[in-house]
Amino acid sequence: MASCPIDPSIIRPIRFVAGKCQMLDQRLLPEQEIWLDYDSYEDVAEAIRTMVVRGAPAIGIAAAIGAWFAARDIDNESSREFFAEFQQRCAVLAASRPTAVNLSWALERMQRFAEANLDRSVMELKIGLEYEALAITQEDEQINRKIGRHGAPLIPDQARILTHCNAGALATGGYGTALGVVRAALAAGNKVSVIADETRPFLQGSRLTAWELQRDGIPVTLICDNMAGYLMQQGDIDCVIVGADRIAANGDVANKIGTYTVAVLAREHNIPFYVAAPRSTIDLRLTDGSQIPIEERDGREVTHIGDKALAPEGIAVRNPAFDLTPARLVTAIITESGVVSGDYVTGLRQLF
Amino acid sequence: MASCPIDPSIIRPIRFVAGKCQMLDQRLLPEQEIWLDYDSYEDVAEAIRTMVVRGAPAIGIAAAIGAWFAARDIDNESSREFFAEFQQRCAVLAASRPTAVNLSWALERMQRFAEANLDRSVMELKIGLEYEALAITQEDEQINRKIGRHGAPLIPDQARILTHCNAGALATGGYGTALGVVRAALAAGNKVSVIADETRPFLQGSRLTAWELQRDGIPVTLICDNMAGYLMQQGDIDCVIVGADRIAANGDVANKIGTYTVAVLAREHNIPFYVAAPRSTIDLRLTDGSQIPIEERDGREVTHIGDKALAPEGIAVRNPAFDLTPARLVTAIITESGVVSGDYVTGLRQLF
Repeated sequence: MASCPIDPSIIRPIRFVAGKCQMLDQRLLPEQEIWLDYDSYEDVAEAIRTMVVRGAPAIGIAAAIGAWFAARDIDNESSREFFAEFQQRCAVLAASRPTAVNLSWALERMQRFAEANLDRSVMELKIGLEYEALAITQEDEQINRKIGRHGAPLIPDQARILTHCNAGALATGGYGTALGVVRAALAAGNKVSVIADETRPFLQGSRLTAWELQRDGIPVTLICDNMAGYLMQQGDIDCVIVGADRIAANGDVANKIGTYTVAVLAREHNIPFYVAAPRSTIDLRLTDGSQIPIEERDGREVTHIGDKALAPEGIAVRNPAFDLTPARLVTAIITESGVVSGDYVTGLRQLF
Repeated sequence: MASCPIDPSIIRPIRFVAGKCQMLDQRLLPEQEIWLDYDSYEDVAEAIRTMVVRGAPAIGIAAAIGAWFAARDIDNESSREFFAEFQQRCAVLAASRPTAVNLSWALERMQRFAEANLDRSVMELKIGLEYEALAITQEDEQINRKIGRHGAPLIPDQARILTHCNAGALATGGYGTALGVVRAALAAGNKVSVIADETRPFLQGSRLTAWELQRDGIPVTLICDNMAGYLMQQGDIDCVIVGADRIAANGDVANKIGTYTVAVLAREHNIPFYVAAPRSTIDLRLTDGSQIPIEERDGREVTHIGDKALAPEGIAVRNPAFDLTPARLVTAIITESGVVSGDYVTGLRQLF
């Protein structure tokens, strides 16, 4: 069986080799680097739900691998009955998180593959689905490198780039989307630096973005989310690049909670606001962002850090995990097929 | 010796009774309610610096009490020599934190009192300064109740009020500035509720605002700082009220980091943005906010919660403790002498 080329110097949060899957437990970074083994679709669904793995592209990869586990373990020789059961199991994976469309994109791709090959034996279907999951895993990093090549020319020399959440290697199959553009700009000789919002409540910025950039020797300065406005006011930020969890046909962007605030601030200060995402994040079925489901997560993420209480017991909490940035605030969307700006309805459709 | 009337049902973070001072250690809330004893000006300066006590009005009160300790312990029978030494000690207190003008306001008031009474004996000066410190302590709560009475009519019925940081009883001699307006609105029969930004990095919102409102039975919902934009977008916030650490003559407001972002968001959503503060916060010597010093604090506040590391070791951090909200984003400034809006240069001067 073919496998991902493993280069230990490159961060890839999901290892899928010879049918075995390991995921870096991103809840424990930066304190501990623990890899967890996965061997069932139920456990993969749980890993997505509990954010062992997070980031829209990485969620898609995990779902594809989960779908292959689901297929592998179906004990039925009829391809049609196998497919019916496979679809049910994919629905379990699909329900693990609501906002990132890459999850359903990957599962639909796996199901389309199976459906297109229903004339084959179940054994052949299972082998084909493993190849498909592996392809999704491997393609992602290549897609990100293309995103980086398209995005790098947009970045001014010496730019101080604000990013929110983690749209880096850890959020993808490798290299990253938003941070892929940073890596590509650096590779092109542009001495950019990154300002990372810590990104409450899950702290993807301080725990993940800071960790992966520091590990790669990329200059990074950590701030609290509420400091970005001040830094913009002081002239300390030249552009913003974020990832996306889902992009509607009109260019509205769902991304980590706080992204909308950064976009409003960027507009206030005439700072370009870029979204870097693979085409699999674009959901042309949705005419605008209001149709994107916004996940609300457990309030404990806000009131506690580990076991430490930050707030009085019993306090009411809101914890929306994502927000919507209207297309009018987005300077450009950077994809593996090119950069779209202005008329997003036309431009995004033309990518497909 | 007269003393503050102590009503245990009312939160007052500084107890100054019969020349003894206790301060509630606000670093330990909400987990522990520990009162610390203070008996020297050096220790009071350290308490201000390390944020045992925080909030511009409370810092002013602490400084006044610290100044009395300073005066009490000067061993000199010459009023002129006493005064020279007293000024030096006040300078130590003044250097404890840079942004809140209430600190220097209180110290200047104490020094003015001493200077105006230099014909008296040192013993009489010391007694007078204790009365003056007590007056500053007691007046503050009355000032806040007046701020509340002026502000309450601005609040719509059933308003969901966003606040940032803690401008409550804990930030003052009692009752609060921004939260004083909330308390006054409730006392007037308006069923308002509060949405509290957690306010990273020091978490004054989750630790202090949530605690004091919950303790008083006032409805409060906690959010992370980066969620306010989403809630405004959803129509879940009707107005914003914050405190201030210093207000320039043109109405520019220095307040806790993140306030500026809330103000930009409020303007984007046509939501009124109110600042509630005593006149002692207004610094007419400064023509605009750019002259207000912005404190940058230790990066460890951002990278750690207690002993728990949130970020990789050695990461670069920015930690500005305040930001500047330009007057154009401020709907009105609510003081004990009335509400100012529009032409702040004229309106603020007329308060004095």
